[in-house]
Amino acid sequence: MDYKESGVDIDAGNEAVRRIRELARGTFTTGVLSQIGSFGGLFRPDLSGLTDPVLVSSADGVGTKLKVAFRTGRHGTVGGDLVNHCVNDILVQGARPLFFLDYVATGRLSPRVTADVVAGMAAACVDNGCALLGGETAEMPGFYADGEYDLAGFIVGLVDRPRIIDGHDVAPGDVIVGLPSTGLHTNGYSLARRILFEQLGLTVDSVLKELGGSIGDELLRPHCSYLRTTWPVLETGAVKAMAHITGGGLTGNVPRVLPEGCTARIDPDTWPVPPIFTFLRERGDVPVDEMYRTFNMGIGMALVCAKADVSGVIAKLIGGGEVGAAPIGEIREGSPAVEYAHWDR
Amino acid sequence: MDYKESGVDIDAGNEAVRRIRELARGTFTTGVLSQIGSFGGLFRPDLSGLTDPVLVSSADGVGTKLKVAFRTGRHGTVGGDLVNHCVNDILVQGARPLFFLDYVATGRLSPRVTADVVAGMAAACVDNGCALLGGETAEMPGFYADGEYDLAGFIVGLVDRPRIIDGHDVAPGDVIVGLPSTGLHTNGYSLARRILFEQLGLTVDSVLKELGGSIGDELLRPHCSYLRTTWPVLETGAVKAMAHITGGGLTGNVPRVLPEGCTARIDPDTWPVPPIFTFLRERGDVPVDEMYRTFNMGIGMALVCAKADVSGVIAKLIGGGEVGAAPIGEIREGSPAVEYAHWDR
Repeated sequence: MDYKESGVDIDAGNEAVRRIRELARGTFTTGVLSQIGSFGGLFRPDLSGLTDPVLVSSADGVGTKLKVAFRTGRHGTVGGDLVNHCVNDILVQGARPLFFLDYVATGRLSPRVTADVVAGMAAACVDNGCALLGGETAEMPGFYADGEYDLAGFIVGLVDRPRIIDGHDVAPGDVIVGLPSTGLHTNGYSLARRILFEQLGLTVDSVLKELGGSIGDELLRPHCSYLRTTWPVLETGAVKAMAHITGGGLTGNVPRVLPEGCTARIDPDTWPVPPIFTFLRERGDVPVDEMYRTFNMGIGMALVCAKADVSGVIAKLIGGGEVGAAPIGEIREGSPAVEYAHWDR
Repeated sequence: MDYKESGVDIDAGNEAVRRIRELARGTFTTGVLSQIGSFGGLFRPDLSGLTDPVLVSSADGVGTKLKVAFRTGRHGTVGGDLVNHCVNDILVQGARPLFFLDYVATGRLSPRVTADVVAGMAAACVDNGCALLGGETAEMPGFYADGEYDLAGFIVGLVDRPRIIDGHDVAPGDVIVGLPSTGLHTNGYSLARRILFEQLGLTVDSVLKELGGSIGDELLRPHCSYLRTTWPVLETGAVKAMAHITGGGLTGNVPRVLPEGCTARIDPDTWPVPPIFTFLRERGDVPVDEMYRTFNMGIGMALVCAKADVSGVIAKLIGGGEVGAAPIGEIREGSPAVEYAHWDR
């Protein structure tokens, strides 16, 4: 890993690098050719069986979910949030991840905190069969408050061009299948924190009976990866489009994968909205529209398939572990957008 | 309560995204398959003529050079610094860039500043024949001071495995060739700022006769890309190792590409040290050792080649535009390290 020495506690830096190297080495897949410490990470992709290899890449951050990590002092999960977010962003185009790189920026480096963060990334990389190929740990005095940091992640995956999922053949009559989220994932935290901590004066330790636990636990729930659970169904070729429900919610993300002439009708009564969202809406007095374009509302991933394929798709998803997979709406004639309405199946 | 009240301005975000899309589109090379706005960027690498394609990837930041951009209000160059830093980091392994992704994080998003930053990246991407394939622009209230932001970049390049430059055949008797830097590049800014602004009480507008211009101009000098100027010599196969002189200086970076049994003797009298480094050393009372492991001291890239190849290599570098290319030392028996001493050629 690369290291900046500007104003750095060199011993802390070396200690952090030593720990990061160990963690990264544990993620190395057969494609990794480089040693850590080289200027760039070297990765030899396995192109066998591909007719026309296409790289798929995405950059992401964790956003202000990090503030919850700071408040709770628990730094072990945000790295996994970041990796899984990136994995899902390329999965929706049909790609499996090859490697991941991270950027960790702090004001004053704490080897322990950095190691906790990177350990979370490394574990998620292993889970997703993805190498932590490199990264940058920057100590930037005066940029970040004491004990705070920012994180960014970059992922590269591979897909054979004929297997790219891009929604081009989505058509009216197709069905939208929703996969449950595991919490807020990594979106809407500025609004959630404002409501919970500022308006309501709660803390991360407040236990709410509606949530069955503390605010800190609820807000730190990991952003899950849908790679393992959805890969079997992607291999069948039945999935026409797939949207990762991130910033913008269902309202903002589903239209990104719809072709001209198609609109999405989603029925919010087809899945159980997790209590945290109901709590935020009611106690924060947030309009329903705003909720659906800020939060995932309980759906972390949306898939589109032909009506004839729905039962097979759902059976495969449930078999893969997505026990809450269910039809949540349909494609109708119109412009790319989401309309929330009762769906008369 | 809505998202905007919580500090996230979706309209400003959309305006920034609109400008970024235009800028990115201008960088698209033939490999880019995706439209901007898709979850991941799609890139189809041209693998023709490669026997064993290897991806080379690196992540970087700009460090506290950003503080100089904030102080001067000039945001057009830091994006280029970031791209060129990344390009150089994979160039040293023999790779040409395919695509670049950015992460821009702010407290409160200014579409104008964001567009200036991204315009700098886009221009550098075009210069390096590299597509700006995607990125993430994060508005994170409470993370960054007003008017401040952080940047990270991520690059992916391609090299044929037999053409990877990794220093494995470096041997005693080989010669080290130095290429001039264009300033501090992106390293040592925390120390430089402390000396110039805190110890000496100067400002970015202070004009120093030693520098022939203002501190702001000097500190914002772009981190140059060595891709165009060194590619012709890399194609000859004469370069055995190549080190990008970033954080750690010559002292820290040259040993990264030396095999066991080799040490580097570098003669600091073989190139002119730019006035800014002399000024920082003298006025900041910085020990010489510390200077050479914090700053590039006027050498932005170091190449290693066989003694018999030196004149040809230097002729090609000069022909490519590196008019200051010159031998700066030699490889001797020892452990990977740098010894600064007179070199008796």
